[in-house]
Amino acid sequence: MRDDSFHVFDTTLRDGAQREGINLRVSDKLAIAQLLDDFGVAFIEGGWPGANPKDTEFFQRASRELTLRHAQLTAFGATRRAGGKAADDPQVAALRDSGAPVVTLVAKSDDRHVERALRTTLDENLAMVADTVSYLREHGQRVFVDCEHFFDGYRHNPSYALDVVRAAAEAGADVVVLCDTNGGMLPSDVFRTVTEVREATGARLGVHAQDDTGCAVANTLAAVEAGATHVQCTANGYGERVGNANLFSVVGALALKHGRDVLPEGCLGEMTRVSHAIAEIVNLAPDTHQPYVGVSAFAHKAGLHASAIKVDPDLYQHTDPELVGNSMRMLVSDMAGRASIELKAKELGLDLSGDRTLSGRVVDRVKGLELSGYSFEAADASLELLLREEMGRPVRYFGTESWRVLTERRPRKDTSPLTSEYESLTEATVKLTVKGERVIATAEGNGPVNALDRALRSSMEGVYPELARLELTDYKVRILEGSSGTNAITRTLITFGDGAGEWTTVGVGANVVDASWVALEQAFTYGLLRQGYPQE
Amino acid sequence: MRDDSFHVFDTTLRDGAQREGINLRVSDKLAIAQLLDDFGVAFIEGGWPGANPKDTEFFQRASRELTLRHAQLTAFGATRRAGGKAADDPQVAALRDSGAPVVTLVAKSDDRHVERALRTTLDENLAMVADTVSYLREHGQRVFVDCEHFFDGYRHNPSYALDVVRAAAEAGADVVVLCDTNGGMLPSDVFRTVTEVREATGARLGVHAQDDTGCAVANTLAAVEAGATHVQCTANGYGERVGNANLFSVVGALALKHGRDVLPEGCLGEMTRVSHAIAEIVNLAPDTHQPYVGVSAFAHKAGLHASAIKVDPDLYQHTDPELVGNSMRMLVSDMAGRASIELKAKELGLDLSGDRTLSGRVVDRVKGLELSGYSFEAADASLELLLREEMGRPVRYFGTESWRVLTERRPRKDTSPLTSEYESLTEATVKLTVKGERVIATAEGNGPVNALDRALRSSMEGVYPELARLELTDYKVRILEGSSGTNAITRTLITFGDGAGEWTTVGVGANVVDASWVALEQAFTYGLLRQGYPQE
Repeated sequence: MRDDSFHVFDTTLRDGAQREGINLRVSDKLAIAQLLDDFGVAFIEGGWPGANPKDTEFFQRASRELTLRHAQLTAFGATRRAGGKAADDPQVAALRDSGAPVVTLVAKSDDRHVERALRTTLDENLAMVADTVSYLREHGQRVFVDCEHFFDGYRHNPSYALDVVRAAAEAGADVVVLCDTNGGMLPSDVFRTVTEVREATGARLGVHAQDDTGCAVANTLAAVEAGATHVQCTANGYGERVGNANLFSVVGALALKHGRDVLPEGCLGEMTRVSHAIAEIVNLAPDTHQPYVGVSAFAHKAGLHASAIKVDPDLYQHTDPELVGNSMRMLVSDMAGRASIELKAKELGLDLSGDRTLSGRVVDRVKGLELSGYSFEAADASLELLLREEMGRPVRYFGTESWRVLTERRPRKDTSPLTSEYESLTEATVKLTVKGERVIATAEGNGPVNALDRALRSSMEGVYPELARLELTDYKVRILEGSSGTNAITRTLITFGDGAGEWTTVGVGANVVDASWVALEQAFTYGLLRQGYPQE
Repeated sequence: MRDDSFHVFDTTLRDGAQREGINLRVSDKLAIAQLLDDFGVAFIEGGWPGANPKDTEFFQRASRELTLRHAQLTAFGATRRAGGKAADDPQVAALRDSGAPVVTLVAKSDDRHVERALRTTLDENLAMVADTVSYLREHGQRVFVDCEHFFDGYRHNPSYALDVVRAAAEAGADVVVLCDTNGGMLPSDVFRTVTEVREATGARLGVHAQDDTGCAVANTLAAVEAGATHVQCTANGYGERVGNANLFSVVGALALKHGRDVLPEGCLGEMTRVSHAIAEIVNLAPDTHQPYVGVSAFAHKAGLHASAIKVDPDLYQHTDPELVGNSMRMLVSDMAGRASIELKAKELGLDLSGDRTLSGRVVDRVKGLELSGYSFEAADASLELLLREEMGRPVRYFGTESWRVLTERRPRKDTSPLTSEYESLTEATVKLTVKGERVIATAEGNGPVNALDRALRSSMEGVYPELARLELTDYKVRILEGSSGTNAITRTLITFGDGAGEWTTVGVGANVVDASWVALEQAFTYGLLRQGYPQE
């Protein structure tokens, strides 16, 4: 456990998931939590147990499946219902029973919201805060209180807003977090308000900023300058409406500009990798222009300054990109994958820096593939297959002669495209060479990837019976920028599991079936390798 | 002409064009200048005449082709060469002859850059600033001086940095602009430095912030709070590396938070239109999560708060979206209640409020569809088609009998799945009824969706020639939880555009091709509706 004097608190899995277009599976949430822990955040808010079955399941599985080195899990929930008791409130019970050592309670602190949205009295709201905090403290949990709409409330009725802070702190909340829920504040507002609240209450304060003015990072820093010691952020700034304060930008400023030691040793350099991997999991393109981690963040136009930059990079860069796991880029070439290449090589027991020819070849090949649309950030298995190839030990269990897929759909009752009844058929044929024998297999499936998956299995199951353990568990498709619509390059990520673990492969192609095949072929190859079969 | 006391200075056409991926034609630059003038900026920096033929041509054509109501054109250039005279410098002559009433001169203000990059003496650099400013002033131009790397320079050698500011101001520069060229500053740094420079020199100061810490907007506002009266920004924050201070966010804060009258009457409401139009011209997708102008900037998750928002929008929005030409948007999700559907319908121009049976039916159907995997959050067009169906006015231009798609791939050289050469073919056949006639069409494409798209077009283009205007612009696929892998439900989002706007539809199916078809069929239907065709 880290020293408790400053909290980097991540709420990607709860508030970040409010971003329009993000829809996380439980396994996505577990994978993101693991990445956030790699980055060294102190707290990971996992969701609202009891409010929806997905979040309840997350907390159940987290205790079994996550190995957190740095972070503590935090459950989010609301204060008890008006007119009741915390001890009798089922929602509070779900927080108590979540298994999370820390609970973040959201409380109303703007009198207008208490009266018009919560429809209770100002006093009852204070009682709800005090009662719920005390109850959870008595049950051994640490409690942080998020004061919703705090800055607007403080502007409208400062004395009531302060009463809520005091109620929370006096009942035993360790941190009272001032939230700019509507996101309309500017740094000078935040600095003044946090200073005043700290002086008036003496409570330990945190900050939670939304980015509606484009100032969430600056607002968070302003709060820290005014004495807040707990910052709530989300990876890549994901969040409702415009988004939340970006975890990476906030930590970048605190570590590199304020010189504060807010992450465990060695974690800052994970920033770029973690940022990109989370983007892949939520299925959003990594923001190429994101501070610190974007592929353009340290890209210098050649020409005027090129030679000067070479001699004196410090004169042209606000920080050393290596510190955040990024790199300077002079040309169009893409170095984004380098961090993962080195990590992966290390995992394989290969020090690439020891063999400059080999590492040069790998970097060149990765660059070339990334230029054509590949991304290895979230596709470790593909990268491992590539590394093995370049090391002169290619993995190969079968050869592909050709395949084809037919999909057909015939509506039975043609009403609306949203609800029509139909019959659908997909059929795939693969022609392979397995252990020197030519095999042809045809299978039906509920879609092209499923049919190809089944045809692959049926062609090889006699030779590799352990194939039965392999299961496709996730499948993501992204159309790449550059050209438009279906006339563009498609990238597919496929995740397989075999009970003991999961692996992800990436495929690129002119269309979704092509790209899926490329990923599928690797997923089978890697899966057979994992089962320990000798190669052909 | 506006009162000169505060300058909104735009440099999209010069510094913004440095963004990786932006490449503007002269006609693009002229169109953007016209839009910036619509938005009411006071100065438009058009480029560097003499430095490249495109910028020279821009200034020539601008004087003939642009009708500016609010803005003055500004030419950008450097101080004269070391060891020469401004009067003999061809680059200075190009500025003088540009026809622009205002010149922005870039000057070195960091002693290290003077010595290592410019390779001249500190005194000669001061002489270059003074000589060039005086010369252009004598020729009747107004001069602003951009002090490059000012903040880093001031940190390293404050007395020299101040000498540069004084040299510029004393030679007649109206504004001395402090530039955070490397973008590493935080608002507190900027506030302190601008305050000190103002007190030390008495010069009129401006600010030019890069966004490398994610604080460019806040840095610009901090400079204004410290007394700067000239802000340099770019539309949508375009610029080198991470980008520049976003014009729209800076103006939004100044106008709506500081309450300053920085734009001419009526211009603030142009913000959203101008932002999106400029994005289209530079050929970048408008940022859906951009403050003030993004389509998600005022999007609210439905359910919990929908009824509250209906009564009291001010409690849930940091500003009125109408003020910046944007609008509130309710995201319809599985939490949706009747209130949010009614709001959504109103947004779409359909009135449900009178008919509780109807709105109840819509809510039930939306909930049912969302349970089966649909998500209407990002698919307004699908929701509108559904609403029209439930209102007894279904939209229908064609009926589907059946379709089928065949994809085939045959590696030419079977090396590694990542790099093998192959030939690939996709072919789609659709059987439709269009205006009572049965049509069968087959088309090849680079993938299933593309082939189906082409087959649909080819089957209907005779009857609906405006189909040619429709273009698929984005395509997203998501595998839904519940069951795993390819044995799961697939959700597809398809976005089409017709030049005048974009619409998104959602499809769900047992496989990716099925789901794509459902979205595609709606996208065509909605597109035909938008083109104003009477239904069959």
